[in-house]
Amino acid sequence: MNRVEPADLEYLRSFLPSKRVLVGADINPEYAHDELGRIKGVPDVLVRAQSKEEVSKILSYANRRLIPVVTRGAGTGLVGGAVAVKGGIMLETTLMNRITELDEENMTVTVEPGVLLMDLAKYVGERGYMYPPDPGETSATIGGNISTNAGGMRAVKYGVTRDYVLSVTAVLPTGEIETFGSKVVKNSSGYSIKDLIIGSEGTLAVIVSATLRIVPSPKENLSLLAPFPTFQTAVSAVPELIRSGTDPTAVEFLTREVISLAEDYLGKSFPRIQGDAALLLTYDGFSAQDVSERADMASELCIGRGAYDVYIVDTEERKESVWSARRVFLEAIKASTTEFDECDVVVPRSKIVGFAKYIGELSERIGIRIPYFGHAGDGNMHVYFCRDGLEEDAWERKLQEGFDFLYSKAAELGGMVSGEHGIGFAKREYLAGSLGSNQMELMRRIKKAFDPKGILNPHKIVT
Amino acid sequence: MNRVEPADLEYLRSFLPSKRVLVGADINPEYAHDELGRIKGVPDVLVRAQSKEEVSKILSYANRRLIPVVTRGAGTGLVGGAVAVKGGIMLETTLMNRITELDEENMTVTVEPGVLLMDLAKYVGERGYMYPPDPGETSATIGGNISTNAGGMRAVKYGVTRDYVLSVTAVLPTGEIETFGSKVVKNSSGYSIKDLIIGSEGTLAVIVSATLRIVPSPKENLSLLAPFPTFQTAVSAVPELIRSGTDPTAVEFLTREVISLAEDYLGKSFPRIQGDAALLLTYDGFSAQDVSERADMASELCIGRGAYDVYIVDTEERKESVWSARRVFLEAIKASTTEFDECDVVVPRSKIVGFAKYIGELSERIGIRIPYFGHAGDGNMHVYFCRDGLEEDAWERKLQEGFDFLYSKAAELGGMVSGEHGIGFAKREYLAGSLGSNQMELMRRIKKAFDPKGILNPHKIVT
Repeated sequence: MNRVEPADLEYLRSFLPSKRVLVGADINPEYAHDELGRIKGVPDVLVRAQSKEEVSKILSYANRRLIPVVTRGAGTGLVGGAVAVKGGIMLETTLMNRITELDEENMTVTVEPGVLLMDLAKYVGERGYMYPPDPGETSATIGGNISTNAGGMRAVKYGVTRDYVLSVTAVLPTGEIETFGSKVVKNSSGYSIKDLIIGSEGTLAVIVSATLRIVPSPKENLSLLAPFPTFQTAVSAVPELIRSGTDPTAVEFLTREVISLAEDYLGKSFPRIQGDAALLLTYDGFSAQDVSERADMASELCIGRGAYDVYIVDTEERKESVWSARRVFLEAIKASTTEFDECDVVVPRSKIVGFAKYIGELSERIGIRIPYFGHAGDGNMHVYFCRDGLEEDAWERKLQEGFDFLYSKAAELGGMVSGEHGIGFAKREYLAGSLGSNQMELMRRIKKAFDPKGILNPHKIVT
Repeated sequence: MNRVEPADLEYLRSFLPSKRVLVGADINPEYAHDELGRIKGVPDVLVRAQSKEEVSKILSYANRRLIPVVTRGAGTGLVGGAVAVKGGIMLETTLMNRITELDEENMTVTVEPGVLLMDLAKYVGERGYMYPPDPGETSATIGGNISTNAGGMRAVKYGVTRDYVLSVTAVLPTGEIETFGSKVVKNSSGYSIKDLIIGSEGTLAVIVSATLRIVPSPKENLSLLAPFPTFQTAVSAVPELIRSGTDPTAVEFLTREVISLAEDYLGKSFPRIQGDAALLLTYDGFSAQDVSERADMASELCIGRGAYDVYIVDTEERKESVWSARRVFLEAIKASTTEFDECDVVVPRSKIVGFAKYIGELSERIGIRIPYFGHAGDGNMHVYFCRDGLEEDAWERKLQEGFDFLYSKAAELGGMVSGEHGIGFAKREYLAGSLGSNQMELMRRIKKAFDPKGILNPHKIVT
């Protein structure tokens, strides 16, 4: 791999205005890391692309010159996936942020990769539609979401990003612009390259457009807050909730510890609830009666499983206090400590309680604060190691020990390394440990099939 | 590639009983083709595997000896995918037909590849669950369904096979047994190799087990039959039906022509309906009121779009006459002619009417009968060229002309070569024409990443 040299800058500036080809002090330091913060690397040059043709020219040039290309959206990742760990070209897509088509006959929306989730939600929402995936980080780009197969709270009912991507147009390292998939909702036409690109974190091709499936916006929404005596009783109710046919949109678990952090962060209080944990459920549908019937069934079921009560989150005030807290969990944990790292494991939903027990044991054993929250409905836990006042050495040591322990426990429980945040740079060794050498070798060969020279986001996912 | 020699048979019989290693006249002629019939090839040896360990031994041996291995389930395919076009070993999986686990906490069922769809439906149905994909051919195996990413009528609401496969355990050509994915419902842990194997028609690895997601069985079901004056008016109502939020489970279109063929085939009549076409809608849910409200909305909408009437398919007699007809469409068309070939295109659902117009034009121009039926809700058409009394030469010529025309029209409309039946041997040239050389080259490289010696189902999908 080569570094970017003056002649390369000259080439880039031959077809891009200088203000979109930035070097040195002109590159905002934010571009040297993502939201995780721990993985760092300064790109040799930051290129802000505005069209697929530009992306094509940049890639084919970089491929000839053997210069790494790291594609970056809004930089909200948590695994160092969009960090230029080996310098090279950072290809930023946030200026490619047009919504190019809404097709109401086929219920699709076509977007450039830099469209922000919040803007997409607003655009389709105003027209009576919903794009179901809803990661907490709404300032992420759709390109980043596709690249990590992002999930979000509504995954229980609606599935994840993969389930809504009908096609992606992507640029191969050699500059060809190809569309994988089409505006059809089912497809058995050869290997699903589209599904390979989804979740590939910029290592196989650069996404320049995507056609997404949208659904009619549900007319009715209802949230329930069910406090339980313990985390264990709360989460143990979940498999039955899913099995019951009440079809919840989201099933989140909240712990007293994380609720308190959110209260501190926001400076306002969460509704007073008894017990150490709660489930936050949402229901949606097209008739108020149907939604309330299903919510009633769920309430009874929670009470039967030991909930103190079940509150309907209906007044504007209560909605605001519950959802504003839920939305800031990550920020609140981040603000509570000096540095953090995250474990985004997903386990079969029946194993959440067992996994949480391991977290508790680990926290005591290594003497580190490990708050967590997550998606009880789909077994995806967000577990945060907080550095607090630890010295660098001790922090690195404990973090390593903690990760080793938790990822191996997740594997024992039939879990996977990441539910929705991806592998990037930070979780490579755990991916390799979890999947084993045969699968990693297959991934290396797949990588090579797309990117024989290895210029696309090197050292991410596979090495 | 080598043919099977006596020494190879000796090796196979060293660990398999002779009755499961068949050659020559002991191989039923059915194994020389699939349901399409037109693609033919006799395997050198038919091996009926009973365990993944046997599959592993067979593959690693064949890989060393460069002998093709064609995996076959129930042989219900329609594209010659499971036909041993170059001889070699046919590896039959129908004896691997155990349901090995039902996990009610996580709502999964784990099956061997030879389990038949009808047996899976019965098993989970008796326990209060549903496996949503429902291809018309219920005597297909689940291994075959995964290999073609089979769809079915409920795809409109529930999606296709891909959406329900949480993990596949597959044997690589070198004999390694690997599990891709796990019992988790979301996953962002490296490239989704599982999604690559789904739909790969036995060309990348041999599936020996799969863990499938199941859902609670809906308590209520309702079908509606809406006759329309014309195919065009019927199908034109569909986008609005989908957009309305009534959430239909299935939206099928029926033509007068195909209904008549089914009546002839069954020797009983379909309910008397006016007009040239009809929509058959189904709704399901957990409360009778909710289902009937949604069905009422749909009925009003159909009437508003020109339906003569909307009949609830509620009496046992009417259910039987409607659904028995719908189920035999393929068999009825097959029985009506001497030979047939099929086009399983999928187009954006707004383009069905336009595509049907091309079929009509083509049928007139080349003087061939081309009945069709399909899934209006997802744009998947099943189009049948019927040979009837044509001479071999004329038939081949017209078929070629017809396919060339229809696949190019489908591509113009943004469609894909196959919605649910796959590519196999019969549709390779149309896949290549539709996707272009860059995508085919990527597929060849992916094939090579899994199967460097090319022993797995050669000449299928890619060549």
